[in-house]
Amino acid sequence: MKIDVFLSAKNIEELFFNERTVVVIDVLRATSTIITALNNGAKEIIPVDSVEFAIKVSGNAFGGKTILAGERDTKKVDGFTLGNSPLEFSPEAVEGKSIIFFTTNGSEAIVKSKFAKNLFLVSFANLDAVANRLIKLKQDIIILCAGSNGKFSLEDTVCAGKLISSINDLYSEIDLTDAAKASVALNKSFGKSIKKMLTESEHGQLLIQNGFTDDLIYCSQVNVTSAIPYFHSGTITLLDNTGKRVNEQQGK
Amino acid sequence: MKIDVFLSAKNIEELFFNERTVVVIDVLRATSTIITALNNGAKEIIPVDSVEFAIKVSGNAFGGKTILAGERDTKKVDGFTLGNSPLEFSPEAVEGKSIIFFTTNGSEAIVKSKFAKNLFLVSFANLDAVANRLIKLKQDIIILCAGSNGKFSLEDTVCAGKLISSINDLYSEIDLTDAAKASVALNKSFGKSIKKMLTESEHGQLLIQNGFTDDLIYCSQVNVTSAIPYFHSGTITLLDNTGKRVNEQQGK
Repeated sequence: MKIDVFLSAKNIEELFFNERTVVVIDVLRATSTIITALNNGAKEIIPVDSVEFAIKVSGNAFGGKTILAGERDTKKVDGFTLGNSPLEFSPEAVEGKSIIFFTTNGSEAIVKSKFAKNLFLVSFANLDAVANRLIKLKQDIIILCAGSNGKFSLEDTVCAGKLISSINDLYSEIDLTDAAKASVALNKSFGKSIKKMLTESEHGQLLIQNGFTDDLIYCSQVNVTSAIPYFHSGTITLLDNTGKRVNEQQGK
Repeated sequence: MKIDVFLSAKNIEELFFNERTVVVIDVLRATSTIITALNNGAKEIIPVDSVEFAIKVSGNAFGGKTILAGERDTKKVDGFTLGNSPLEFSPEAVEGKSIIFFTTNGSEAIVKSKFAKNLFLVSFANLDAVANRLIKLKQDIIILCAGSNGKFSLEDTVCAGKLISSINDLYSEIDLTDAAKASVALNKSFGKSIKKMLTESEHGQLLIQNGFTDDLIYCSQVNVTSAIPYFHSGTITLLDNTGKRVNEQQGK
């Protein structure tokens, strides 16, 4: 099982991901928020790569079951129902809802990976759950760190390293690229206190300045859920522990 | 003094470097080769970002004082005098010569930084020499790792981390971005045996497969020269220890 890591989502052609198994990570905050929304009963997340497209998609929605969520420069997009703070995605706010979701880096990385054979969403909250599923698939893996406008993000890379270590705890036959080896080493250097690492990271600092300190604490929780968000046919829903999409099982 | 690191040269606009102080690193092998060529008496290196442009530039050369050097897929470009192995750039081969130089990642990174206010070339061989010069300048620094076709290269990032540590040994007031902090950590993880790290890196493995094992051993030498290659007005020459270009001093 070969594992590669891309340190940002820019500069990669979307066709590169065709038929591959991809894991997208955007710890602060898109993938942390998606996990929370689905755990709190959202029907599905529809990631989009522009605000304009989010509004266009929402034009076809009716019946109050579809909401717009997302951020620009860390703050809620004007006119959207929710921003990108996981703490906003409470059961009251999201239960039964389809959420059209735009964020500066995270949703773009997901949309870019849309041709993947398997596409998982990971944050610190669900590492072991996804590691278990990936081991069952036994396929080469690309971990795509959303990064920050084409630049490296420490938190996404440390999370990638921790995911690789989780996989390696259960399955030893892994072959790592330079970037994957570096991610594992960075998890060893910075992964002992996730809260400290997030607080000192560039994006963490920006979130603190903009009043989102509680989000950092929330996003620093490791392995607190077995949720496996999975992208398929344009929407993200949860997989159950047999690898089936929960909504499909329920005939929704 | 703020220090940032770019983990590859793709996806950055050349105007971004305008008036900045930039250090380009391509350990395997462009910057190691440039240092060797200048130490062995080459008059200047003229980096170009395509083979086509290399041939065009050489069309204006006469008198046997200009040679073409460079590689594609690690191997000498057909028709060029030299490839990109530092071991080829002996005094006999390069003394007094202007060398038009094309490599897949390194020369492209240098050309991309051409609008920098100061542009230094670094490999493991000359870290302390350049660190000393950078401290005298007391300006914010961007370290540009050439990487590999837009992807992360372990050896360039470890070298960046070692350069930052050299700077920090002499000057404590440095402010590091996420990528700079990660580079320092990766130097701590992988920098104890540069030869081992180079041998296990992706590009190192490719060079070994293509018969360049001796280059890895050569490029693993740390702080063996005080050479400071500096790009100015289209050519790379050495700076003396007062920061003047050697050729200008000599009135060449």
